[in-house]
Amino acid sequence: MKTYLDCFPCFMKQTLKSARISTNDETKIKKLLDEVGMMLKDIPMENTPPETGAIIYKKIAEITGNNDPYKKIKKQNIKEVLALYPKLKEIVKNSDDRLLTAIRLAIAGNIIDLGMDKKFNIAKDVEKIMKQDFAVFDYEEFKRHLDLHDEILYIGDNAGETVFDKILIEELPHPVTYVVRGIPIINDVTIDEAKYIGIDKVAKIISSGTTAPGTILNLCNDDFIEKFNNASMVISKGQGNYEGLSDVKRSVFFLLKAKCPIIANHIGVEENDIVLKGINVSR
Amino acid sequence: MKTYLDCFPCFMKQTLKSARISTNDETKIKKLLDEVGMMLKDIPMENTPPETGAIIYKKIAEITGNNDPYKKIKKQNIKEVLALYPKLKEIVKNSDDRLLTAIRLAIAGNIIDLGMDKKFNIAKDVEKIMKQDFAVFDYEEFKRHLDLHDEILYIGDNAGETVFDKILIEELPHPVTYVVRGIPIINDVTIDEAKYIGIDKVAKIISSGTTAPGTILNLCNDDFIEKFNNASMVISKGQGNYEGLSDVKRSVFFLLKAKCPIIANHIGVEENDIVLKGINVSR
Repeated sequence: MKTYLDCFPCFMKQTLKSARISTNDETKIKKLLDEVGMMLKDIPMENTPPETGAIIYKKIAEITGNNDPYKKIKKQNIKEVLALYPKLKEIVKNSDDRLLTAIRLAIAGNIIDLGMDKKFNIAKDVEKIMKQDFAVFDYEEFKRHLDLHDEILYIGDNAGETVFDKILIEELPHPVTYVVRGIPIINDVTIDEAKYIGIDKVAKIISSGTTAPGTILNLCNDDFIEKFNNASMVISKGQGNYEGLSDVKRSVFFLLKAKCPIIANHIGVEENDIVLKGINVSR
Repeated sequence: MKTYLDCFPCFMKQTLKSARISTNDETKIKKLLDEVGMMLKDIPMENTPPETGAIIYKKIAEITGNNDPYKKIKKQNIKEVLALYPKLKEIVKNSDDRLLTAIRLAIAGNIIDLGMDKKFNIAKDVEKIMKQDFAVFDYEEFKRHLDLHDEILYIGDNAGETVFDKILIEELPHPVTYVVRGIPIINDVTIDEAKYIGIDKVAKIISSGTTAPGTILNLCNDDFIEKFNNASMVISKGQGNYEGLSDVKRSVFFLLKAKCPIIANHIGVEENDIVLKGINVSR
């Protein structure tokens, strides 16, 4: 997905939000806004928005000296979701369609997005999403692909969401490779959090190497690119990965909540809709 | 009121919004975002936000060639409010406190703000504001000043709102001078709209000469500055005028709806609160 004009004010907004989490020094924050303001003219519209995110968040780290401003918040989110875990497992166990319930939960976890300007309440939002209709629902295709293939590459998104991903992974019938970011960026999952959550007990963990808040193939390491190209089935979580992978030629199943109006529009849904969308999949 | 860090993303947002109303040419809009992005570093934090607005909206006019992009929308808003006028007059006539009802209506008119990112529905919002509690309510002081003085300088804000202002002016017991902007800026009132609405029938109209979407004294003409300093009572409508005049040494009564969180915070109220606030007034 390319950059839209609406992304530019949003880049400034994200800069301010993240800068404030990184430092209390208003002079540094102003300097950051100035520098990001000057950078805007050099952002090609053909870039995916997370590519610009990579540059901006690098600049924030440089100027504030804080490489992982969301560390504490990530821990807090994970703690909160882990406390829900037994209840979430119960919901799956008691449901008519365990796989679909686990997919819904995995999407519910996608609300924990600190790059966005939305407030969320994990427990309440989960409850809501469990009852929400899908705006795109390629579930039959998803199941067909599960039948066709015997391994899954599962690309994670934010750190708290990974607890929900674990629940879906536990319902998947094939071995899973779970993909994390290459560096801490916003509240996205890295290898440390994935291990802390226990993903290593249910899947193999690899890093895509991306330095962006999304899977941008030209920022990923060769090992990941090869695995991505050759994986028999790919599940991609969240907006950042969608922005990076929406135009790839291979099949991908996107699980996300559309929190940004521009991404919602790109998918053809409304803001706040939930989506299970397959691209290049057999129908 | 000075510029806050939160104003910077908002400057970009306003640029995009106004640029889109001014032109369909995406290349020009991108150029505008680039230029405004580069300008951010030169904006002193001591400036009031509308001073920056003046620079940005001038740049929008320069690049798009459109000096009054809101012309049609202003006309449409005025038409809509004029259609309500007889009903609004009835509301005042049938109320227990005609002056207070007219003040409420004048604040209700303040919702027609196209510089802000809020949607509004004039008829519905008026109904709501008629029942809303004031967050700041210096009504006793307002009435005391009306008793003490015998002429009023009334600083207008947006063009549609001016119809509501007319209703309040009709309830004021003293001669009124109504102040409009020096040039068309966003959807603010200029001399043309004020005359079209018939303000010249109930008040003397003067231009402050400001080129900003607010009364910024150092952008105003000498005649206005003299009148402002010597006026016995000043009524100021809306956020832009508040931003420009909140720190003046003379008495001013501000009537507004707090639509921006930063301005709300500066006044000490919540977003969406309605305010009748006197500064430097006898209590």
